[in-house]
Amino acid sequence: MITEGAEKPFERSTIERRDPRPNDVVIDIRFAGICHSDIHMARDEWGGGIFPMVPGHEIAGVVSQVGDDVTRYKVGDRVGVGCFVDSCRECENCRAGEEQFCLKGEIQTYGMKDYQGDVTYGGYSSSVVVDENYVLGIPEGIGLDAAAPLLCAGITTYSPLNHWNAGPGKKVAIVGMGGLGHMGVKIAHAMGAEVTVLSQTLSKQEDGEKFGADHYYATSDSTTFDELAGTFDLIVNTVSASLPVDSYLGLLRVNGAMVNVGAPATPSEYMAFSLIMGRKTLAGSKIGGIRETQEMLDFCAKHEIGAEIETISVDQVNEAYDRVVDSDVRYRFVIDTATFG
Amino acid sequence: MITEGAEKPFERSTIERRDPRPNDVVIDIRFAGICHSDIHMARDEWGGGIFPMVPGHEIAGVVSQVGDDVTRYKVGDRVGVGCFVDSCRECENCRAGEEQFCLKGEIQTYGMKDYQGDVTYGGYSSSVVVDENYVLGIPEGIGLDAAAPLLCAGITTYSPLNHWNAGPGKKVAIVGMGGLGHMGVKIAHAMGAEVTVLSQTLSKQEDGEKFGADHYYATSDSTTFDELAGTFDLIVNTVSASLPVDSYLGLLRVNGAMVNVGAPATPSEYMAFSLIMGRKTLAGSKIGGIRETQEMLDFCAKHEIGAEIETISVDQVNEAYDRVVDSDVRYRFVIDTATFG
Repeated sequence: MITEGAEKPFERSTIERRDPRPNDVVIDIRFAGICHSDIHMARDEWGGGIFPMVPGHEIAGVVSQVGDDVTRYKVGDRVGVGCFVDSCRECENCRAGEEQFCLKGEIQTYGMKDYQGDVTYGGYSSSVVVDENYVLGIPEGIGLDAAAPLLCAGITTYSPLNHWNAGPGKKVAIVGMGGLGHMGVKIAHAMGAEVTVLSQTLSKQEDGEKFGADHYYATSDSTTFDELAGTFDLIVNTVSASLPVDSYLGLLRVNGAMVNVGAPATPSEYMAFSLIMGRKTLAGSKIGGIRETQEMLDFCAKHEIGAEIETISVDQVNEAYDRVVDSDVRYRFVIDTATFG
Repeated sequence: MITEGAEKPFERSTIERRDPRPNDVVIDIRFAGICHSDIHMARDEWGGGIFPMVPGHEIAGVVSQVGDDVTRYKVGDRVGVGCFVDSCRECENCRAGEEQFCLKGEIQTYGMKDYQGDVTYGGYSSSVVVDENYVLGIPEGIGLDAAAPLLCAGITTYSPLNHWNAGPGKKVAIVGMGGLGHMGVKIAHAMGAEVTVLSQTLSKQEDGEKFGADHYYATSDSTTFDELAGTFDLIVNTVSASLPVDSYLGLLRVNGAMVNVGAPATPSEYMAFSLIMGRKTLAGSKIGGIRETQEMLDFCAKHEIGAEIETISVDQVNEAYDRVVDSDVRYRFVIDTATFG
């Protein structure tokens, strides 16, 4: 599905994929998740969009062809592609397996020019050609539909939970219960942490508890911030609106961290005192590298974790976008590309 | 030296110190540093000040008497007292040796009521009575005058440098070259880090290099932020004015941290993107516990590090306060209490 510009709807169209190079894998796409950032990109809300655009960086499918030098995958393998499809492979971050911080700039799965100068097109499509080093294996035990959103929403929450040591004995809060937040709850619970959801209202409490939350609080209730003061080792903030940061920092224990994975378009404010009075940290985290993404997929398969999805046809993308903006999705739309017909 | 209220000058006066309890040490104060926070407190700029007030939490002296149960110190020992003189000793932070984060609230060296209900009086005085568990040993090799400021300025910079692993192979920036900053430069250099000073101007460059800075940049020169983009593992910000936080975050490498030890009275602003695009952290740090403070003093003695001081008489305190506010001190005023006469 292609969009010709920020104010244009998605339409069926045909794009050319490159002929596979020796290290390329051709993937028959089965499902593609709709991430909120797809909407920002397709509507050019961050500027600089390259149109026509085919969004989609939560891709799950099956290998249909491999280049001559491919060793990691074979035809028929269940595979996924996430937010990037190449990186410089030489900088200190690439060498450390943290390609998401490539100093040359990793090549995003869609909407930018790659190192060869070709525009990348994403997963709202029937197939994609990607270097095998940027392809993930999807283990048996997760459906391809429920796996697709793991490639962005899954790794975006897994990585900070992993990096900041969520696990037994740790109290973790997940702020927001959307596409990212619901994955954060499932993963933090599977890691063994005591999980609290902080959501605007209690409307999704039943779901949250089903996903593994031990506690569920409404942030619209100001007593929440008194009751939970000094409680958490880690807060993962999945919300992309500016929050009253000092209030949230007050919920952290000494040495606690609040990690932003949602990125508000406006500045956030904090008092340095809120950090100083307990050696607290405010941090950010961005998807994960290829190695950590594979680790996340293996972890999810082991713990039988997938995204909660609503499957749609390719012709429902425009409608789905409006529903995402209205927060009317539980919890991720996934496009069934078989509906290309 | 005592002040009767926010707008009153310091005057000589006589206060009563408590009779030593079994675990108390009586200290003949020799030198007391003037910390900028003394001025905020004495002028009641943070509110809630208890007057009359005797400031001073950078205390160096000699033990003149010990209680019956004291085991750690004897008469004649060179000792120091820092920012607090008691804590609950039972909470998780006290038990972890991080009394500065005591959950019951540590008892500050001056200007508050202790657990017995008595007001504490600080170091601008000829003697002080303190529980031995909150007294530090000052090793031979540092003069008591140059040691006094280590009890606040020293530990305030040592603790974040220690916690965030400044050392060989690490690039550390110290923002500000005042009482805190000049100690940060000396300590980071002694730890083996490559040290850069970021100061408003180059006026103290010669001093900075003498203290161990490898590089010295003016933040008033906007090219500094381009030239140093992505450079530092750690930035210790000693400035108590609000800085353009995003610009400083841009100076950090992936996984880098900017730690605030200065506390602006107004909020600071940041874009979450600045943290997300390199898993960066914004943090705060506050003095250190007793164990770490002793470690800092031993480290400073081993590396022959003391504060750069200007010694004044007790009658020069009012004038010294005005000069500190005007940034007219290199780098710490220390009151010579022998001048009480």
